[in-house]
Amino acid sequence: MSSKPSSVVDALATRQTPELILDEGRMLRNVDRLRAHLEPLGVTLRPHMKTAKSIEVARRVLTGGAGPATVSTLKEAEELFAAGVTDILYAVGIAPHRLPRVQALRAAGCDLSVVLDSLEQAEAVVAASANAPIPALLEIDCDGHRSGLKPRDPAIVEIGHALVRGGAHLRGVLTHAGESYTARSESELVAFAELERSAAVDAAGLLRQAGLPCPTVSVGSTPTAHYARNLDGVTEVRAGVYVFFDLVMAGIGVCQIEDIALSVSTTVIGHQPDKGWVIVDAGWMALSSDRGTASQAVNQFGGVVCDAAGKPYPDLLLIQANQEHGIVAVRPGSGARLPPLPVGTVLRILPVHACATAAQFDAYAVLPATGGPLQSWPRFRGW
Amino acid sequence: MSSKPSSVVDALATRQTPELILDEGRMLRNVDRLRAHLEPLGVTLRPHMKTAKSIEVARRVLTGGAGPATVSTLKEAEELFAAGVTDILYAVGIAPHRLPRVQALRAAGCDLSVVLDSLEQAEAVVAASANAPIPALLEIDCDGHRSGLKPRDPAIVEIGHALVRGGAHLRGVLTHAGESYTARSESELVAFAELERSAAVDAAGLLRQAGLPCPTVSVGSTPTAHYARNLDGVTEVRAGVYVFFDLVMAGIGVCQIEDIALSVSTTVIGHQPDKGWVIVDAGWMALSSDRGTASQAVNQFGGVVCDAAGKPYPDLLLIQANQEHGIVAVRPGSGARLPPLPVGTVLRILPVHACATAAQFDAYAVLPATGGPLQSWPRFRGW
Repeated sequence: MSSKPSSVVDALATRQTPELILDEGRMLRNVDRLRAHLEPLGVTLRPHMKTAKSIEVARRVLTGGAGPATVSTLKEAEELFAAGVTDILYAVGIAPHRLPRVQALRAAGCDLSVVLDSLEQAEAVVAASANAPIPALLEIDCDGHRSGLKPRDPAIVEIGHALVRGGAHLRGVLTHAGESYTARSESELVAFAELERSAAVDAAGLLRQAGLPCPTVSVGSTPTAHYARNLDGVTEVRAGVYVFFDLVMAGIGVCQIEDIALSVSTTVIGHQPDKGWVIVDAGWMALSSDRGTASQAVNQFGGVVCDAAGKPYPDLLLIQANQEHGIVAVRPGSGARLPPLPVGTVLRILPVHACATAAQFDAYAVLPATGGPLQSWPRFRGW
Repeated sequence: MSSKPSSVVDALATRQTPELILDEGRMLRNVDRLRAHLEPLGVTLRPHMKTAKSIEVARRVLTGGAGPATVSTLKEAEELFAAGVTDILYAVGIAPHRLPRVQALRAAGCDLSVVLDSLEQAEAVVAASANAPIPALLEIDCDGHRSGLKPRDPAIVEIGHALVRGGAHLRGVLTHAGESYTARSESELVAFAELERSAAVDAAGLLRQAGLPCPTVSVGSTPTAHYARNLDGVTEVRAGVYVFFDLVMAGIGVCQIEDIALSVSTTVIGHQPDKGWVIVDAGWMALSSDRGTASQAVNQFGGVVCDAAGKPYPDLLLIQANQEHGIVAVRPGSGARLPPLPVGTVLRILPVHACATAAQFDAYAVLPATGGPLQSWPRFRGW
């Protein structure tokens, strides 16, 4: 259940803009949807907290109070651990200079694991494991997106041996189909999910054939998590932006516009009638400069513009953004009519990329699922 | 004077990454350069603090301890006022719901002025001026960039009368040649500066002919501020990014790469040798998604990659960025050689857009102009 439109409009009318509005009802539906999809597939969900960066969101997303969780920075790990989350995977390739912070968290009782894809990193982890073994997963490159070893690279076994021989813990393999963000159809999404699964399972097989342990086989991205049909051999799935969704995910077809739980409130501060422009007080400082839908079938520019209740206006977009100014106009060529939006009108803009937009704010202004006044949930940031 | 390269390298080797590194020596040179250019032109410099958002930077940039200063948010005004800055121009069109905060700052002793370009806003300012007049400047559109009234629009006089009649203060006119960022030659930069000057002076003339006051004639952007040859009739110039400069400004020709005072430190965390990729721990979370040089003659992608001492590698760029991962590679087609950059190497990346990159951090790690250990200068954020 979400807050009633009329009460939302009343609540936003008395607040400063821009704010990061979180519709808790939509968020809970998104969380339930992925849980329900993964449960029959027999895998653990390890939500990625890099999008939310919030203890209040973590409490509603993590399947258990203690995790499991995925993070993209040690700052996220430290904040979550301070709030009682103890099973954490740090899913960005480990930089040797971060190992003292990893050991400090582990010594305090956090089961923090790290990720690597080179012998150099394995040697650093081994050196830091002298008194207390650090668990490490090998990163596998399933789709050429970024980091990782190819699924059948003999270096997988070599690095696995180096870890075990040196006294670190080899916890398994991990992959992420970042290229699934380029998918253009359901069949492509299903294929990316299978690519992810088979790459991780192949790499796990290499380790096991060599007599090495591989208890964890971790895959995931929001698109593949929702379209995986078969996860045989996989033990856990990671996903992050599914909690909120955004216009990039809607463009891929993973969600509907109506599922997007985040928006940025803004106020009309001017007009350029000759150009059909409405000037608002949300620029890239509030929304980020992410233009992730520019390469999709439907370019949503800087975001979809909604009324204060959260209902999108037909073909009304944030077409340009400066630091604290946004320019709202109808989609070029759409023929849609610009609604009357006098100075002072409060609007809400759906984000292109939820992770990037949320990062511009220190708190969520939450529309509670049970109704009632907006609540403030702090966000953390930094590294 | 800047810190010695060898001591910088030593200092960075022991720190976490990514950090926002500020070379104070370069900053002070940039600050001196614009001061020296404007002094003989007989105008006041009103630096825009939206880029720096820092009291320590403000102390080195503002010509007097009390200002004058320009801001893009009331949060910046409140922070600067708390630090003793009392002459502040809030240069984003006023939203009526912000007027109580404006009045609170003014009641506390801050000479805060606002900007508007419509009768609706003027009426709101008049209504809020009942007990204490608010000073307002009329925003003029000199180049079709964004907000403002055309320089000869009769509405200028109409709104001016509405302010004066209603008991607000008409403080003058303001314009900003935002389109100067598209300039491709020195002659275009000079022409944009003159466009800005003449638009503001024309609008001021309209007001004065109608018997209205116009004490302030305010122009400015970093490109035009540096290329103005004649500022007759102008009383003050605003600029912000000149304090740090960035790759967009270097692309326009307003500065050299060697003048850029900001960089982001990062650590090598992996390689994809087949692709010529070096993976680093600075993604868009550290650098922003701004790609402002993509439309310039030389596309610098996500930033120019330097060694830890701050010296650029030939044609080495951040070619892609995810949230916490950056991909470093040589410029496509350049034929440059990828230097050996083992895991753990510390690099520094020059920002495409200093305002956007700085906004991703809560503090500057400052290389002091006089040498010595790095210092931390906090940044403020939010609205």
